[in-house]
Amino acid sequence: MFHNDGFHALDRQECLRLLAKVPVGRVVYTRQALPAVLPVNFSLDTDSSVLLRTPASSDLVRAIDGAVVAFEADDFDAVARSGWSVVVTGRATVVTDPAEHERLSRTGPRSWVVTGEGVFVRIESEMVTGREITVPHSTD
Amino acid sequence: MFHNDGFHALDRQECLRLLAKVPVGRVVYTRQALPAVLPVNFSLDTDSSVLLRTPASSDLVRAIDGAVVAFEADDFDAVARSGWSVVVTGRATVVTDPAEHERLSRTGPRSWVVTGEGVFVRIESEMVTGREITVPHSTD
Repeated sequence: MFHNDGFHALDRQECLRLLAKVPVGRVVYTRQALPAVLPVNFSLDTDSSVLLRTPASSDLVRAIDGAVVAFEADDFDAVARSGWSVVVTGRATVVTDPAEHERLSRTGPRSWVVTGEGVFVRIESEMVTGREITVPHSTD
Repeated sequence: MFHNDGFHALDRQECLRLLAKVPVGRVVYTRQALPAVLPVNFSLDTDSSVLLRTPASSDLVRAIDGAVVAFEADDFDAVARSGWSVVVTGRATVVTDPAEHERLSRTGPRSWVVTGEGVFVRIESEMVTGREITVPHSTD
């Protein structure tokens, strides 16, 4: 898609390499039948799934646990009109296994704002797509 | 929402003021029953609706014309763990009125990649929400 509009597609490995370079992405989901989006800091697990940390009582957890969501990250240079974006699409689940929670407490993302324990949410990287601006910009 | 997690809500005017400061945002919509998201450059019209410019034949136009979508922009400082995000939710429509198209050709956003005419898409700012990190970050 969008092959003819000045972007080129990135392969899965390149997408994951770029994802690892940025601290913040955006969870894209449905809330009360409307499209919703929330920026969060994140990290990638060893299996390339996306990991978030959030309060257990958050609206986000209620909305996405068990649902297929998209997770987007990007980096653009407005002056050079260049950049990339990557989207991971997959099922989001709250990590409930105590050993896994313990492992992620040591290795997973640190929330910018959660002061208590919080929960970890894993988004499986079932589909990973990305694109990059590669053409010289016009002067229009 | 999320009032107790270190963020504070921004009012509509503050949201629109912040939106005007960044060149790129993300359209959040549904494609083939899955959550989808696409970064685009944009501008705000005089009535505070969000304006995009895209190829007339793009998958994006087919997916969002006539649909309610979300449009998100943000700016975060990972070192300071501070920043803001704004979400506009409203109906997206392709601008078909010739006079309006002509006006936007002069005043609307310039696509980074569209080399031909392209079409303008307007997202009505029916609901505008935003939040900002305001608490000092923990050292955890």
